[in-house]
Amino acid sequence: MAAADRGWAAPPLAPPGLPQQTAKDGVLAARQRPAAARPDAAEAPAALISPERLAEFFAPRSIAVVGASDTSAWARFVLASAAATGFSGELIPVHHVRRTVFGRPAVASLRDLPEPADLAFILVPTDAVQGVLDDAGAAGVRGAIVLASGYRETGPEGQAAEAQLTARAAANGITLLGPNCLGFLNAHAKAGPFALTVPLPLLAGPVGIALQSGALASVMLSFARSRAIGVSTLATMGNEAMITATDMVNYLIEDEHTKVICLFLEQIGDPAAFAAAAGRADRAGKPTVVLKAGSSAAGSQAALAHTGSVAGDDAVVDAALRQLNVIRVTSIEELLTTGALLGYGRPLRGRRMGVLTASGGACDIIADQASARGIEIPPFAPDTAAAIAPHVPPFAQVRNPLDVTGYFLANQRTSALTAIDHALDAAVSDPGLDFVLFSGLTLPDARPADEKLASMLDERVAWLGQRMDSAPIPVIAVGSTCVDVTPYGRDLMGRNGIHLLGGMDLGVQAIGHAIRWSERRAHVWPGPAGTTTMNPCCRQDDIKGSSLSPEAGVWREGEARGLLAEFEVPLVPGELVTSPEAAAAAASRIGYPVALRISSANITHKSDIGGVALDLRTVAQLRAGYQRVSTADPAGPDSTAGPADPDSTAGPAGPDSTAGPAGPDGVDGVMVSKMRTGGTELLAGVTVDPAFGPVLVVGLGGIWVEVLGDIALRVLPVGPDDVIAMLGELKGAPLLRGARGRPPADLDALARVILRLADAALSLGDSLRSLEVNPLWVDGDQIEALDVLVVTEPPEHDKQSSNRPIQNRTEHRT
Amino acid sequence: MAAADRGWAAPPLAPPGLPQQTAKDGVLAARQRPAAARPDAAEAPAALISPERLAEFFAPRSIAVVGASDTSAWARFVLASAAATGFSGELIPVHHVRRTVFGRPAVASLRDLPEPADLAFILVPTDAVQGVLDDAGAAGVRGAIVLASGYRETGPEGQAAEAQLTARAAANGITLLGPNCLGFLNAHAKAGPFALTVPLPLLAGPVGIALQSGALASVMLSFARSRAIGVSTLATMGNEAMITATDMVNYLIEDEHTKVICLFLEQIGDPAAFAAAAGRADRAGKPTVVLKAGSSAAGSQAALAHTGSVAGDDAVVDAALRQLNVIRVTSIEELLTTGALLGYGRPLRGRRMGVLTASGGACDIIADQASARGIEIPPFAPDTAAAIAPHVPPFAQVRNPLDVTGYFLANQRTSALTAIDHALDAAVSDPGLDFVLFSGLTLPDARPADEKLASMLDERVAWLGQRMDSAPIPVIAVGSTCVDVTPYGRDLMGRNGIHLLGGMDLGVQAIGHAIRWSERRAHVWPGPAGTTTMNPCCRQDDIKGSSLSPEAGVWREGEARGLLAEFEVPLVPGELVTSPEAAAAAASRIGYPVALRISSANITHKSDIGGVALDLRTVAQLRAGYQRVSTADPAGPDSTAGPADPDSTAGPAGPDSTAGPAGPDGVDGVMVSKMRTGGTELLAGVTVDPAFGPVLVVGLGGIWVEVLGDIALRVLPVGPDDVIAMLGELKGAPLLRGARGRPPADLDALARVILRLADAALSLGDSLRSLEVNPLWVDGDQIEALDVLVVTEPPEHDKQSSNRPIQNRTEHRT
Repeated sequence: MAAADRGWAAPPLAPPGLPQQTAKDGVLAARQRPAAARPDAAEAPAALISPERLAEFFAPRSIAVVGASDTSAWARFVLASAAATGFSGELIPVHHVRRTVFGRPAVASLRDLPEPADLAFILVPTDAVQGVLDDAGAAGVRGAIVLASGYRETGPEGQAAEAQLTARAAANGITLLGPNCLGFLNAHAKAGPFALTVPLPLLAGPVGIALQSGALASVMLSFARSRAIGVSTLATMGNEAMITATDMVNYLIEDEHTKVICLFLEQIGDPAAFAAAAGRADRAGKPTVVLKAGSSAAGSQAALAHTGSVAGDDAVVDAALRQLNVIRVTSIEELLTTGALLGYGRPLRGRRMGVLTASGGACDIIADQASARGIEIPPFAPDTAAAIAPHVPPFAQVRNPLDVTGYFLANQRTSALTAIDHALDAAVSDPGLDFVLFSGLTLPDARPADEKLASMLDERVAWLGQRMDSAPIPVIAVGSTCVDVTPYGRDLMGRNGIHLLGGMDLGVQAIGHAIRWSERRAHVWPGPAGTTTMNPCCRQDDIKGSSLSPEAGVWREGEARGLLAEFEVPLVPGELVTSPEAAAAAASRIGYPVALRISSANITHKSDIGGVALDLRTVAQLRAGYQRVSTADPAGPDSTAGPADPDSTAGPAGPDSTAGPAGPDGVDGVMVSKMRTGGTELLAGVTVDPAFGPVLVVGLGGIWVEVLGDIALRVLPVGPDDVIAMLGELKGAPLLRGARGRPPADLDALARVILRLADAALSLGDSLRSLEVNPLWVDGDQIEALDVLVVTEPPEHDKQSSNRPIQNRTEHRT
Repeated sequence: MAAADRGWAAPPLAPPGLPQQTAKDGVLAARQRPAAARPDAAEAPAALISPERLAEFFAPRSIAVVGASDTSAWARFVLASAAATGFSGELIPVHHVRRTVFGRPAVASLRDLPEPADLAFILVPTDAVQGVLDDAGAAGVRGAIVLASGYRETGPEGQAAEAQLTARAAANGITLLGPNCLGFLNAHAKAGPFALTVPLPLLAGPVGIALQSGALASVMLSFARSRAIGVSTLATMGNEAMITATDMVNYLIEDEHTKVICLFLEQIGDPAAFAAAAGRADRAGKPTVVLKAGSSAAGSQAALAHTGSVAGDDAVVDAALRQLNVIRVTSIEELLTTGALLGYGRPLRGRRMGVLTASGGACDIIADQASARGIEIPPFAPDTAAAIAPHVPPFAQVRNPLDVTGYFLANQRTSALTAIDHALDAAVSDPGLDFVLFSGLTLPDARPADEKLASMLDERVAWLGQRMDSAPIPVIAVGSTCVDVTPYGRDLMGRNGIHLLGGMDLGVQAIGHAIRWSERRAHVWPGPAGTTTMNPCCRQDDIKGSSLSPEAGVWREGEARGLLAEFEVPLVPGELVTSPEAAAAAASRIGYPVALRISSANITHKSDIGGVALDLRTVAQLRAGYQRVSTADPAGPDSTAGPADPDSTAGPAGPDSTAGPAGPDGVDGVMVSKMRTGGTELLAGVTVDPAFGPVLVVGLGGIWVEVLGDIALRVLPVGPDDVIAMLGELKGAPLLRGARGRPPADLDALARVILRLADAALSLGDSLRSLEVNPLWVDGDQIEALDVLVVTEPPEHDKQSSNRPIQNRTEHRT
């Protein structure tokens, strides 16, 4: 939705309210003429943040530093960063009083510039920023970075100030980065309006980076330098008032220098737009790697403090990222090492790895790491082994993983190539391997003083570079541990096109990510369902605060069954009754044995309070069961639901307990249904995530969900293959495949039923809160919903629902 | 056993067969006079490898390099290593032909030395080594390192050669490191007979290292250098013909410079000795950190190739290391970072962490990492927050984790201390914190040219060092990522006693390890049961190859029940019958409902083949059940046990199927027992690990074990607390605690029963192969063994057993 609104798919148009101007760089640009101020940054004119406009923004040829003074550390950083990037354009201090800053002539205002700077880095205090934006607009400056904080991150007032800021920028036709950010670096365009230390030297390369935490930028650059990882553009996003991390993804996809996109995210503000961008990146063959904070509650709190944004539930984020083929990592080292492998390496097309080392211990470590990540180390083909054998000592075993041993060290070196190089030469032609991990490139700290040795090393590394390049399968050079690449190594390897990954641990981890990325590329997921079929559900503002709304309502069992029936979800034969006699009549129609379940909008954990009677085989059993079930106490027997779950049933004395057409305790009656035994019970349902919208959850019922938390989830929509994959992810999956003598479940049929159930949920539109079938019973190809719970929220909050309120969303019951 | 034999506990004595000599360094030393050659390295005289003797061995003041020539890279390495360590003693080349080597005068033989060298580094080829040992013995040399390979790692012949080598060394009174090793370094004693590159500078420090892979030594030293981690003694163990990794642990415990012991292990050769050493290390307050290879099958294969030793089952290794409070890690970076924290830091006495950073992103990452490791980040006390508040900008939130923000950078620095330093000053006095993670020490690459700035940094770091030292709780300085410490940083921080951990990821990981180490110190485990009660079981040689021995025997049900009864394990009431009539009589004595289980030594997966009938409530049901059960086909119904499990039943046509007193199919009869419903079914049993001996396994029965592999294990012996902890580790533990309305199990009673069952298993001594109760039924405080399987191997292999053979060890059935 937002993506389409903002024009990624459609050809760029002039934003509404702005006169069409001269085309530049293929974009119809809006400038100078102020438009009406807009209250919401998300509605900033699309052209200001189109990839083309951002390409211009991120490659300024002249930069005005507004608020620069000799005593400002920020200005000093910006100056140093310009030097670090080799910026050759004009860098003009702007200061309302000082005439020279850092020895350069300064102007008093942007309006005094002889010609507009491409970019203004605005360092002035918060309350002076808007005026500078007007100056910039008047001067024809098209891009601005705002350093000041005191906006959204501070609360409601700051939020309003930020909306004003964005509107003013848009009105002035200015593309805005920040506020509360530290600028960016573009190593290829040699531009660095960046207000932090740049570790030197800055290496230009394939890794594009965007960060929602500016202070981590220096940390990332420092690690990148240590591992000789080259950066294309790095941007600190700040509050993302106009340019968002998602916009950065779209820009980096178009940026020819960027081969891989690395993100540090505290929140994904607009999941639909992010999903669209991730899909584009995937199709463009540019992997996206994300370090997403907030996997812990404490992390979410820290993220909250930092950005003033609510992080979504982490399991949903995790599922969505996987669906989008976005690689998720947990450390900066992992982020950049994975980025480096994907940026410098060739695509990995399989899991079969050849391993070449000069140490048995390294073989052990690599084999353990590979095994943990599902990477195979198959035996060498006989030809490979035969070709390697002459180059290793007679006592060494020629096997994969290969230890060439250190024994070639025993004699003085007479040729450039060593045993492991010859092994590489052979291994790359092994038909049983998909790629080779080469851990044989340990260079001295500096170029050896002995010129003969030095030139042998030159020759060897050149040979390796060529051999890796010409090899039929990718070769991944991996160092032993995560230590800095020396300047000598950086130069020698860089010259020969070799990138060395930082250690066996990080290296194999990155390889695992790269393989999975390749494997998942075939499966493109269009993004959250909310964007197409039920848009409002995926918009955080509409959902926020609603989860405990007292207007929420639990559907009557009959209505819920009706909804499922409409979507052709098979239901267990059953009838709702309100007397023992009716129960007996129903049971004789349905056929014994039967099950009874209390039907009440107040009771969602039925079995915990004695509201379920199973396997009733006679009328007598039925009557006794009816008596038990119909008088089940919603408060539960000494609270077996646990003290942590006080809201699982709404007490009969609740404020609404006498409202509505149901009985005194909200009991509609008792459901009599055919007893199903054998087979397997699942849980399948749809809940609504505040950020990503409707989420499908499947699990094995009963203890599997309640004790083990054994569930799989996906953001909707999904297809049959996804549902089958979800079922396969369950720890209890072997039960569905026929473990312990059960008939294997018909997974195709099961997936179809689950998809219909998901459709039923989506049909409820933005009133959906949850739809859950638990148990969903499967026995071979027999599939039936045994019990169903539907909870919706009326679209209008003042609507008097006939349904009973509940206190919380209940996912797991029976 | 071995530990005691080898004299760690007893005062050192002269080894048998050797005359008592002059005492030196408190050790009665044996030298010069050859003893009878011994066939087994494990029986090397204890005095040669006592910690005192090793202290002498690892601090040589003169070193002879035997086989040194100008063309030997090994010799060149040894020379360079001597320089790297600052060795000031004599380094004497020994070569049978050359008179000068590397410009130094050489002698032809060790016998020509004017006085004995403390140590001989023997670089000669394999077949010349023994002669050199005789020379060494004759010359009075007391220590030798053997570089040559071609021993145990090559097969049986090499094994014999190695035994000879050890015997010759012992006979000559020589302490031997290797063969197939690269020597050692002692940074404090400034001695480095080490045949690999030493990355310079070599920093002396608290971390002792032993490696079973020599080539990784340089890798470790390189990483240690990059992180300014100082080493005490590092040794490459090679084949461990005499000095083993366990001996190194014992030496490092006594070494005053060593505060923490880091090991790279491919195998634990003598678990009992290792356990004793680990226990001593724990008591001495020196943590042991192990990177143990072989967590994967592929890893075990690589380990096999490298050392010629069989690695034990990894889950058992894992359990044993945890029991011994040995920290297990998976990468070199983690090994040395954990070592550095434990070596340089103060003990961590709790899990409540204060976090100080200058970046919200860092807060996020640290919080996520901490949460994953169970480290708490509680709010600051009001006093702490009040003391910090004046030092952060008004818009910054004073909370834990703290982001002081980068805004202090905005103004030129006028004092040495920054906001985060003031925050540290306050946080260390917070009564709610156990320690503080300080991520605020980012130094420039080199000493600033601006002398004022440089001296402010000097002042700041000095203040930090003092404040950390004086703080009531430990402060852990953590860098942002794993990049090299610069020489400037190393010097400045080193001078002020600050050690900086390599990144948030590795840092928090190390903190988690250190906390767990402290927590577990109270619980000392004496080591494998085999050492005391059933010694032969823990000796690999006795067990090797026995697991598929055809003499193994499954006990008859009655005998197995008898054994449990003897150890007061409660048994379900039951009788073995051989006719439906007898079954009915038994059932009426026992009381309906009853269960039937076929009793046959050929059938171990009873339920898979229809050998179990449950919940029989009438005589008619009983008779029908008897008919079904007694004719159960051992070949199974279309193999529900799965094609991967063909050995789960021995076919009736097996070679022994007519032997013994049992019926034609090995059926003894049918067990009639009281039917137990409700409650929870467990599995509890003892199996024998080839390396560690008897291992206790507990799990939840049925699907929990078979589908989820949900088991906990411990090497025996264990106490009641251990068993309760094991039960708590199960994924299904909530079921025992009363989840889903069950009565909570009496865990104390359950632990007592499981311990009695373990005692029953141990009573079988070295004939034990497995004893398993499955199900072990528990309902509140009612506990009963419902079915039991005992498998033993007769001590003499030629003994004709009356029991039935089985084809494999069966752990999980029913």
